[in-house]
Amino acid sequence: MKLIAFDADDTLWVNEPNYVDVKQKLCELLSHHIDQDTLAERFYDAQIRNLNTFGYGAKSFILSMIETAIELTNGAITGTEIQQIIDVGRKLIDFPIDVLDGVHDVLEILSKKFDLMILTKGDLFDQESKIARSGLVHYFKHVEIVSEKNEQAYQRVLHRYNVQPADFLMIGNSLKSDILPVVHIGGRAIYIPYAVTWVHERVTDSQLVGKSFTTLTSVRELLDLL
Amino acid sequence: MKLIAFDADDTLWVNEPNYVDVKQKLCELLSHHIDQDTLAERFYDAQIRNLNTFGYGAKSFILSMIETAIELTNGAITGTEIQQIIDVGRKLIDFPIDVLDGVHDVLEILSKKFDLMILTKGDLFDQESKIARSGLVHYFKHVEIVSEKNEQAYQRVLHRYNVQPADFLMIGNSLKSDILPVVHIGGRAIYIPYAVTWVHERVTDSQLVGKSFTTLTSVRELLDLL
Repeated sequence: MKLIAFDADDTLWVNEPNYVDVKQKLCELLSHHIDQDTLAERFYDAQIRNLNTFGYGAKSFILSMIETAIELTNGAITGTEIQQIIDVGRKLIDFPIDVLDGVHDVLEILSKKFDLMILTKGDLFDQESKIARSGLVHYFKHVEIVSEKNEQAYQRVLHRYNVQPADFLMIGNSLKSDILPVVHIGGRAIYIPYAVTWVHERVTDSQLVGKSFTTLTSVRELLDLL
Repeated sequence: MKLIAFDADDTLWVNEPNYVDVKQKLCELLSHHIDQDTLAERFYDAQIRNLNTFGYGAKSFILSMIETAIELTNGAITGTEIQQIIDVGRKLIDFPIDVLDGVHDVLEILSKKFDLMILTKGDLFDQESKIARSGLVHYFKHVEIVSEKNEQAYQRVLHRYNVQPADFLMIGNSLKSDILPVVHIGGRAIYIPYAVTWVHERVTDSQLVGKSFTTLTSVRELLDLL
């Protein structure tokens, strides 16, 4: 194995629960205007619609919250309430990074034997900030932040570091972003699911048929494999 | 010269005028609430304040417009008006890319003699989209998008490509981001000012004392130098 890449959010540290929490606060802020199920549904629609114009990350999430609030109140929501939504969303910019159990120990050992990379998708500014706050960066020889983790993105990264797919291992919690595209280009992938997965990152069973990858329950189990 | 890097916005294509135009539309939208000078001033304050939390780019700009509108109307602005602000701001996501005069010709020639790089700062999603829309990417061997163009960022890029500062040339329209940090680390820099410069990118004369770089009036003049 020439290069081992780790996804960041919900692989190295807790991320999605912060987004779930902010979404819950949006529901509370708007609870006198609309029911929660409608809100959740329309908010997801706004998020998916905005992925093409705003991409992933906190700022895109905040803009989707604002648009959903405007839409569901037929424009009647006030500036004061929208400022509350922005302030709730700001939490996504600077929440304390909670490194997952075992990550420090495993990176300490693996970084002595392999070239490690953080390979994460999302907003450049958000991701750089989270990486800095994590205190993990010294374990990694490389950091790559991409806007989407598809086969082309992985191929670009491997090309840049002159690594063949067979010499590449990706470790992450998203079947859609971390596992399937890597398997498709001939790389090796280890799936470590996290308790919470954003609906957009889920895949169907049929997409997994015939694909080979390893599933672990904890990052600690990597040490037995590598 | 081993590596020649070009800034993108207002070096390869028109960018800042799109932002000036959107800011003008914000003034029109809010003209019945507030006077234009106060708006311009408070909007700039919001932008600078938000650079630390949201970074550069269209989404950050839109959020700053919203916060300024809320602040200056004491929260009385309606959701309908805020949606208008977002819709005006969306222009920054997909405006047609107007490649500056001479850029195609110069890149066509230089790309045959040198390794060229796009080296731009800003929002990953915005910048990737603009690069794709520009139709210029085939001239460039490398693309690097960074969140801030300071000495550390340039050093990281040079290290990644194993290039010494003396073998590196940066070409751009911002003294602050493209010229001074490159000169400070021992690289060569060519300054091609653009008609409009965002206040935040300006530097004082005293910051330029003792610094050596070349100023050109058009990208076409590069061919006489290289």
